[in-house]
Amino acid sequence: MARQPIKFGILGCADIARKFSRAITLSPNSTLYAVGSRSLEKAAKFAKENGFPESAKVYGSYEAVLDDPDVDVVYLPLPTSLHVKWAVLAAQKKKHLLLEKPVALNVKELDLILEACESSGVQFMDATMWMHHPRTAAMKDFLSNSELFGELKSVNSCFTFAANQDFLENDIRVRPDLDAHGALGDTGWYCIRSILWASNFELPKTVLALRSPVFNKAGVILACSASLYWEDGKVATFHCSFLANLTMDVTVVGTNGTLHLHDFVIPFEENKASFSVATKSGFTELVTGWEPKPSEHHVTTDLPQEALLVREFSRLVGSIKFDGSKPEIKWPTLSRKTQQVLDAVKLSIERGFETVERLIGRYKNDILVKPYRLVAKVKCLIKFRNFIDNFELLQHTLTIVFPHITLDLEVQSTGLPKGEIGWNPSTWTTFATMGGFMHFSLKTAITRRGRKRSFRSRRASHN
Amino acid sequence: MARQPIKFGILGCADIARKFSRAITLSPNSTLYAVGSRSLEKAAKFAKENGFPESAKVYGSYEAVLDDPDVDVVYLPLPTSLHVKWAVLAAQKKKHLLLEKPVALNVKELDLILEACESSGVQFMDATMWMHHPRTAAMKDFLSNSELFGELKSVNSCFTFAANQDFLENDIRVRPDLDAHGALGDTGWYCIRSILWASNFELPKTVLALRSPVFNKAGVILACSASLYWEDGKVATFHCSFLANLTMDVTVVGTNGTLHLHDFVIPFEENKASFSVATKSGFTELVTGWEPKPSEHHVTTDLPQEALLVREFSRLVGSIKFDGSKPEIKWPTLSRKTQQVLDAVKLSIERGFETVERLIGRYKNDILVKPYRLVAKVKCLIKFRNFIDNFELLQHTLTIVFPHITLDLEVQSTGLPKGEIGWNPSTWTTFATMGGFMHFSLKTAITRRGRKRSFRSRRASHN
Repeated sequence: MARQPIKFGILGCADIARKFSRAITLSPNSTLYAVGSRSLEKAAKFAKENGFPESAKVYGSYEAVLDDPDVDVVYLPLPTSLHVKWAVLAAQKKKHLLLEKPVALNVKELDLILEACESSGVQFMDATMWMHHPRTAAMKDFLSNSELFGELKSVNSCFTFAANQDFLENDIRVRPDLDAHGALGDTGWYCIRSILWASNFELPKTVLALRSPVFNKAGVILACSASLYWEDGKVATFHCSFLANLTMDVTVVGTNGTLHLHDFVIPFEENKASFSVATKSGFTELVTGWEPKPSEHHVTTDLPQEALLVREFSRLVGSIKFDGSKPEIKWPTLSRKTQQVLDAVKLSIERGFETVERLIGRYKNDILVKPYRLVAKVKCLIKFRNFIDNFELLQHTLTIVFPHITLDLEVQSTGLPKGEIGWNPSTWTTFATMGGFMHFSLKTAITRRGRKRSFRSRRASHN
Repeated sequence: MARQPIKFGILGCADIARKFSRAITLSPNSTLYAVGSRSLEKAAKFAKENGFPESAKVYGSYEAVLDDPDVDVVYLPLPTSLHVKWAVLAAQKKKHLLLEKPVALNVKELDLILEACESSGVQFMDATMWMHHPRTAAMKDFLSNSELFGELKSVNSCFTFAANQDFLENDIRVRPDLDAHGALGDTGWYCIRSILWASNFELPKTVLALRSPVFNKAGVILACSASLYWEDGKVATFHCSFLANLTMDVTVVGTNGTLHLHDFVIPFEENKASFSVATKSGFTELVTGWEPKPSEHHVTTDLPQEALLVREFSRLVGSIKFDGSKPEIKWPTLSRKTQQVLDAVKLSIERGFETVERLIGRYKNDILVKPYRLVAKVKCLIKFRNFIDNFELLQHTLTIVFPHITLDLEVQSTGLPKGEIGWNPSTWTTFATMGGFMHFSLKTAITRRGRKRSFRSRRASHN
């Protein structure tokens, strides 16, 4: 017997849900099964206008969709601040979860969602459509080719659009109670994703928001920029904004090659997309032209990228439902890394453009570590120099490596519970530090030679 | 009688001089007249290989070129550290000066050159070729169109090329004694120029180098990035490098339009160049494509951009020589602004990625003001709060406005002579402050009410 298509239930009647309804219809392994809105009338209208079959269920609440035992997947395009509540509930009701971006207000909330999905054994994926376009795979082939592209050196990404006055005053995406991330969540999400994609999802070591973000009166970001740094010298910058003409650039430069595209989030055309690549570019004699020149590549697709996303998600859900497969961990991992960098950018802005460093260590479970933390100021740590065996002061980055030392580090900071930076005495930890508002005190340390040292509690803070 | 072509003398036999020799030949109003090298043999070989006429003078020293009374113009492609000596000498000998970029090691040196040119009444121009391509004017038309482009919001510029190992170890451009700016001077110069060009040469208020520049062993920059900020909210970033595939991007985004080009310094082809523009870009119904899409524009040119530069320079020189015109001030002004920003980026790197603010005030002679200064740390100035009548603390920028107050401000800093920040008691001054290593002390102040206050000398420093 042929497998039945995966049944989608949609929570809410957001604009983007219209596009996804079409995608669910276009995808061969999915079907529009239910829609729920706080208004039954609105849900009925949405179903009628968006190609739901006659048999589709129309509900006057979100709960009713979650309670329908035949719904396989919940597509959740509600405002970000509502994600944690409804996503966790959906997962608890054993619904596979297709979650709109930005996925959560912060990694902490996302972790609640991911933990609920893991407990229920359901698939999680965010709705970042361009990841599923065949162009993305073709570009990745280029970036992965050590001969044609070489080693990644820099990425620049830009996603802006010119919102009208009504949007800037009233849209969900500029309301602190609904989408507190503003342009950073709505367009910056894609920039961050593109940078992580280009860097094989290796998290940056340092995130620094650039100066002069623009806020609305309620403090929501209307435009901002940030820079990202990796330990191997890779750098990336991005700019996101509601205040400038629609622009969607990604530029990736490696030692041997360059990739350009100008429509990375939504291709100019639905069934055909292009990108430009250059390899070992050089000049003609007398440097009056380029040789070789960049070349344009075109990728066609029968299904639009959002339908490819639905098809892939439905395939994964089908494997779980019919074959007993486990959920694909790749998708929640990518969402979480994107959210981590987003959180770091936001923290850097909130901290007055301080760098936010990632703690790097050997942790039990890498995916659940919360690696972005603003730790103490270099100046303060330097005071501990005498007590730490192996101490390196790199330019602008303090790295303290302490093998075979036990530190009883009491961490106290705005927003962080005591001791949140764990110290595992059986292994080693490196952490890098710059800037910040954290207060900390060093209580005891056991040196390599086994001597125990105690210190008076010492407060350090940066203004 | 037809005017004679302008006679060019070339100092040195640099590679770039080969390209310029051809340009001087191609330009209808100029002629290759002399070349000087420390080796007469090298000069003769250069003249022979680069289309110098039989009658051309070949000299075994730079001085001899300057001493030849028939030389109208000196083209000076020597290493940057030699510019000030030879450029000043050339100007003193009444030679019009076409100076390779980066024009000087810093604005102070450039000012010596510009002052010599001004005294001698000779024309100054730097050899930034792309400024003279007709594409540049066509793009400027687009950027100047308030309907098509609107208000400038952001610029991103990137110029990288992959130097080989020999270059990275031995080239003039990585030697601290010859071209101390490295990639910042060689490729960053163009990025800075493109950003200033896009912003109508309005100097940014703040310059901040991004973290993780790459240096060679001698401390010369091989790759770096920076961000620039204007008071009206415009932002720009650039990346320059010797370590990544040849890439030459400029992206300019305004409220209504977007400009892209990928070969801004040297067009892909000599006689035809393109750029892409988009205006009021939006999406199709359901956001599955763009409407309108960006469009490609092509500009042809009979002469390559370097010949157009020579033609324009020769035209200006001809006007001075034959018509008694005054030198065109536009070109030294653009060079100086580019150098100012370059200096600020370098200072920001040297200061550990502190922001460098431009002092804004009403000065007697704007072009000779040295506006980039790292002044005292916010925290310190806050101590003076009580004594300053009008005090505003903006986010990350401290602006102190003191109308009708006389401050006797003694300024002492690394590299700055005492009192270099002048205070004009008859008018007002605003200065913005962030970060830095400057020491200063406030000695006396007369408040608006006429009371004189004295302060104990107070030192303030950062770190």
